[in-house]
Amino acid sequence: MPEFELIDRIRARAAVRDDVILGIGDDAALLQVPPGRHLVVAMDTLNTGVHFPRDTAAADIGWKALAVNLSDLAAMGAEPAWCTLSLSLPESDEDWVDGFLDGFLALAAGHRVALVGGDTTRGPLSVCVTVHGFVEPGRALRRDAARVGDAVWISGTLGDAAAALALLDAAAPVPPPLRERLDRPQPRVGLGRSLAGIAHACIDVSDGLLADLDHVCAASGVGMRIALDALPASEALREACDATARAAFQAVGGDDYELAFSAPADADAAVLAAASAAGVAASRIGEVVTGERVRVFDAGGTEWQPPRRGYAHFDG
Amino acid sequence: MPEFELIDRIRARAAVRDDVILGIGDDAALLQVPPGRHLVVAMDTLNTGVHFPRDTAAADIGWKALAVNLSDLAAMGAEPAWCTLSLSLPESDEDWVDGFLDGFLALAAGHRVALVGGDTTRGPLSVCVTVHGFVEPGRALRRDAARVGDAVWISGTLGDAAAALALLDAAAPVPPPLRERLDRPQPRVGLGRSLAGIAHACIDVSDGLLADLDHVCAASGVGMRIALDALPASEALREACDATARAAFQAVGGDDYELAFSAPADADAAVLAAASAAGVAASRIGEVVTGERVRVFDAGGTEWQPPRRGYAHFDG
Repeated sequence: MPEFELIDRIRARAAVRDDVILGIGDDAALLQVPPGRHLVVAMDTLNTGVHFPRDTAAADIGWKALAVNLSDLAAMGAEPAWCTLSLSLPESDEDWVDGFLDGFLALAAGHRVALVGGDTTRGPLSVCVTVHGFVEPGRALRRDAARVGDAVWISGTLGDAAAALALLDAAAPVPPPLRERLDRPQPRVGLGRSLAGIAHACIDVSDGLLADLDHVCAASGVGMRIALDALPASEALREACDATARAAFQAVGGDDYELAFSAPADADAAVLAAASAAGVAASRIGEVVTGERVRVFDAGGTEWQPPRRGYAHFDG
Repeated sequence: MPEFELIDRIRARAAVRDDVILGIGDDAALLQVPPGRHLVVAMDTLNTGVHFPRDTAAADIGWKALAVNLSDLAAMGAEPAWCTLSLSLPESDEDWVDGFLDGFLALAAGHRVALVGGDTTRGPLSVCVTVHGFVEPGRALRRDAARVGDAVWISGTLGDAAAALALLDAAAPVPPPLRERLDRPQPRVGLGRSLAGIAHACIDVSDGLLADLDHVCAASGVGMRIALDALPASEALREACDATARAAFQAVGGDDYELAFSAPADADAAVLAAASAAGVAASRIGEVVTGERVRVFDAGGTEWQPPRRGYAHFDG
């Protein structure tokens, strides 16, 4: 399939939105940002063997490539609108592209996101996505907005994706609910929208809970105390491993794409109502204190020492 | 250099603009589009060995990665504002990154473009850039706007980059002015801005003049007649090859990043004034006619048969 047929194939399946004046097919897209809103832009790349296992289905790669980007918009409290896609492929495989689009566009449709441009090139398999959304001025959830005294919260459950990856690396069978969390993360877009105006700081958990909360602490000039026992775990994770492994997966495993956020200590009811409206659980896991980084404590009040703090490219 | 030091290194060198509310360092950038303007978005990826020779200097890769994107904004008549950068690197090499940023940010500074986000990941060398700009509603230069009777124009000169690549492929010495055109294309941003309101259709020449004008013909439902002898060539190209090779480089060679555009037949003075204001030459090379694609004729009026029409990924 030559490049321009591939582009036509993608264009034929792209969604329509009234604010897209010109979508795929010109040198650039022409778009209309609603008056009085800020534009929110995030960009993330997935590379084979780094961001997903080499055996990952094309549809799951498509889903995840968009999901990790929508998760960044969710963490800002933004409403998604448009995306662009750059797809580097070693060869032009029609079935693979169709599968990839199945996953990518299914998630896009669920959030009313229109694919408006990008490019297709030859190269090692790599998927780069840029997403665009809107937020009301002053309501964006920024990393630098945590305040001493805030409660710290997490959406959903933690550790499933990291457990799936560890089992895969060990060539052990992976329970389907864990693999699903690794391959099809659910960006918490609705929750992010509901939290705008309630939460203070917010970040999505991609590198691992402690590493990501450390970013919030650094940006906000605060510390945090987290209760290890308060970290929410799925049934599948509880069945798959013992408490020691589970704690590590939850606290330092990456790829969860849950929202970790701080909110005023007296806003519990508002947070729980926002989570309920978004159809996601929210758990209060700690508090913002004076300090510089995150410290974790077990039920007996002893500080817990993580095996590492999270995932970073190019680390040792 | 770990990932977060690399990001800090990039952030420290990013330019500042008043319309960037939040730049590098959060989950997403927060940006302010001027009231009454459309947002223009383009995204292009460069892969090693595909889009640039493997021996290309880091600074030239940085320059070119942004240049090909700004060229897309130029082809829309847009004013550039912001960009995001996704950099996949096999290893974190401090000198390489500094060199890359030298080239990338030199071009960004020349066009007042602020780098506002992106990501750095491990993987085969690949550079994905998304650029954002503005255009006044109704003034964008679209591919579908060519009209029968328009004159067809090209900026600058054609064929230098393709000649450089052919010489490199043949392991022959490459005259520096030709290599410069391959490694450091000059996006015609000022010309694109000047042409908004004067030109009808516009495209940047990346795949080759005929291939790119074919896109304009397809989008506009027209044909074109191009005079082979009117295609502008540099002195360096005239010295480097004979007339047969030169014609091929000019008509079907890619990577020129000149603007090919149509304008009303009575707008010659306005086009030349716009080009002069932008400091770029403009040559009238043909006319828009009824038909479906581009046909090229030599000085004797005989139709010229191109060796191929241009470059497309995954062809043959």
